[in-house]
Amino acid sequence: MRYDIAIVGSGPAGLSAAINGKIRNKSVIVFGNENLSNKLIKAPSIDNYLGFFEISGDELKNKFKEHIDSMGIDICQKKINNVYAMGDYFALMSGDEMYEATTVILATGVEYGKPIKGEEEFLGRGVGYCATCDAPLYKDKKVAIIGYNKESEEEANFLNEIASKTYFIPMYKNEGLMRSSNDLDSSIEVINDRPVQIHGDNLVNKVAFKEKEIDVDGVFVIKDSASPKSLVPGIETDGPHIKVDINMKTSIEGCFAAGDCVGKPYSYIKSAGQGQIAALNAVAYLDKLKIEQRKQQQQ
Amino acid sequence: MRYDIAIVGSGPAGLSAAINGKIRNKSVIVFGNENLSNKLIKAPSIDNYLGFFEISGDELKNKFKEHIDSMGIDICQKKINNVYAMGDYFALMSGDEMYEATTVILATGVEYGKPIKGEEEFLGRGVGYCATCDAPLYKDKKVAIIGYNKESEEEANFLNEIASKTYFIPMYKNEGLMRSSNDLDSSIEVINDRPVQIHGDNLVNKVAFKEKEIDVDGVFVIKDSASPKSLVPGIETDGPHIKVDINMKTSIEGCFAAGDCVGKPYSYIKSAGQGQIAALNAVAYLDKLKIEQRKQQQQ
Repeated sequence: MRYDIAIVGSGPAGLSAAINGKIRNKSVIVFGNENLSNKLIKAPSIDNYLGFFEISGDELKNKFKEHIDSMGIDICQKKINNVYAMGDYFALMSGDEMYEATTVILATGVEYGKPIKGEEEFLGRGVGYCATCDAPLYKDKKVAIIGYNKESEEEANFLNEIASKTYFIPMYKNEGLMRSSNDLDSSIEVINDRPVQIHGDNLVNKVAFKEKEIDVDGVFVIKDSASPKSLVPGIETDGPHIKVDINMKTSIEGCFAAGDCVGKPYSYIKSAGQGQIAALNAVAYLDKLKIEQRKQQQQ
Repeated sequence: MRYDIAIVGSGPAGLSAAINGKIRNKSVIVFGNENLSNKLIKAPSIDNYLGFFEISGDELKNKFKEHIDSMGIDICQKKINNVYAMGDYFALMSGDEMYEATTVILATGVEYGKPIKGEEEFLGRGVGYCATCDAPLYKDKKVAIIGYNKESEEEANFLNEIASKTYFIPMYKNEGLMRSSNDLDSSIEVINDRPVQIHGDNLVNKVAFKEKEIDVDGVFVIKDSASPKSLVPGIETDGPHIKVDINMKTSIEGCFAAGDCVGKPYSYIKSAGQGQIAALNAVAYLDKLKIEQRKQQQQ
C-alpha cells in the first residue's frame, strides 16, 4: 500500500497534520509512540495553548489522544530511520521494513543534546543511529551503545546477541535502569560515565571518557530523533533545523516539515499550526499530482 | 500609557498573541469585540483544532474566553481605524481617541468581499472607511453608507446628525434592520439594492445601482476589517494579505501580523500558532530595544 501522506512524529505538529490530512480524505500513516510526545508529557503546566489554561502536559496529551481516536487515527509505533526520495514517492525505512508514501511530513522534534565530539565525523564509519539496521556489521565485534532514552536498552540487548562485547552508556537519568537489572542483559557492561570523544583512524576504534578509554569497533548513538540530514539524505538545513518556506515545504519536492524541527519557538500551538499548514500543502501537492497524471493518461 | 504590545483583532491569532505576550510579562492591549470573532462563532462544527473534536465555534469561543479571563486579559471594544508608525512607537487611532504602543500585532482577519468598483480608486477622495473620523468633512452634505455589518447602522445614525441627506445601503442579511426601524433614524433613506459602482471626477459624486443612481458627496464603506493598506499606511501587501516573513514580521519595524490577514489557510489553529510566533518575536524586539536604550544611556 502506498499512503498519500506519511507523518514522522506524533507530537502536536504530527497530530495536527494527521487530522487535517484525514479531514481531506487522504490516507495517512503516523509514525510515533504511545506517549505521543515525550517532551509534552513531562510539561508540568501549559498556559500558552489557546483554549486550555493551566493544563498539564499529560492532560493535554490525553486531549490530543481523544481527538485522534475520535477520528480513527492510529499511531504506528515504529521508528523511522531513513526517508528516501524515490522520484514520485518516498520510501520510509524502519529497520528492514519499508513503507511507501507519496508525500512526507517531518515532525520529528528537535534534539537538544549536542553531538559528542567525533560523533558526526565518524557517522557511517563506525558510528550509527540504528542498531536494528546495522547490527549485522558487528557480529563478534565490540560495540558501545550511547543511550539517550529507556528504549535504547532494548537496542543494547539486541546488539548483545550478536556482538562479542557490548557496553551500555546511559545518558539519561537511570534510576529505572539501576533498580531493575531485568531490563538489561547481565552480560552487558554498563558504564556510568559521560563519553568525551569518539576516536578512530579510518574507522571508529575507541570511546574516551574523562579518565579511561574503551576499545570498540562500533558506536550506536540512540536518541529520540535523528538529525534531519541523517534521517533524510540531501535535505537542506539551517543549523539544527530543517529549512522550510512559509508553506512548510522543504528543499525536497513532496516533503514538508513542521514543529520544533523547523525552528523556534519550540512550542505546542505553533507546532500544531504548522502541522496544519504542512498537511494542507501536502494535500494541494497530491491534488496537483493527480491532475497531472490524468492529463498524461489522456495524451 | 504606552503599551508594550497592541493587538488589533480578537480572533484566535490575536488572543494567542495576547496570552503569549502576557506570559512574557509585557503590557498588552487587545482591540476587538465581545464575540471575539464573528467568523468563529458562526462555525457549526470544528474538527481541525487539535485537542477539541467536533466542537462548535461558539463553544470554542467560550474556551478561548475562559482562557483569557483566567489570565486577566480584557478585550478593548474599540475599532482601530488607523495605525501609524511614529518612529519608536505606534499610534493607534480609534475615531478621535489615540492609543500608544511600542509594538503592534495585526490580527484583523481578512475581508472576503471584493471592493466595489471605484471604491479603491476614490479612497481618500470621497470614499472613507471611518465615519467617526471623517464626518466633519460632510457637514450639510449628502452621504451614503455601504454597511457590511449591523454596527454600520450606528455610523449611519451618527453621520445623519451632520449630513443633509443620508443613504444607508445594507450589504448584510438585514432581517434585523427591517424588523426594527428603531435602530436606524427614520430620516435615513434605506436602499435595498446592490451598488454597482462609485463614480466621480476628481471627487466622488455618484453611487450607481443596476437601474438607478444617487448623487452623493461622500461614501463610507463600513466593514468588519479594513484593508491592510488603509489600516496601516505604507505596509507591504501581497494581494489581500499582509506580507510577513517566517517570524511574522511585516515590512514595518516593530509591526507584526498573524492569522487570516497574512494568508491562507484561513483556519483557527494556524492563526493561533502564528499569533504565538508574532508575540514571541514582538517580545524579542522589545527586549532588544531595551538593551539598546540602556547602552545609549550609558554613553
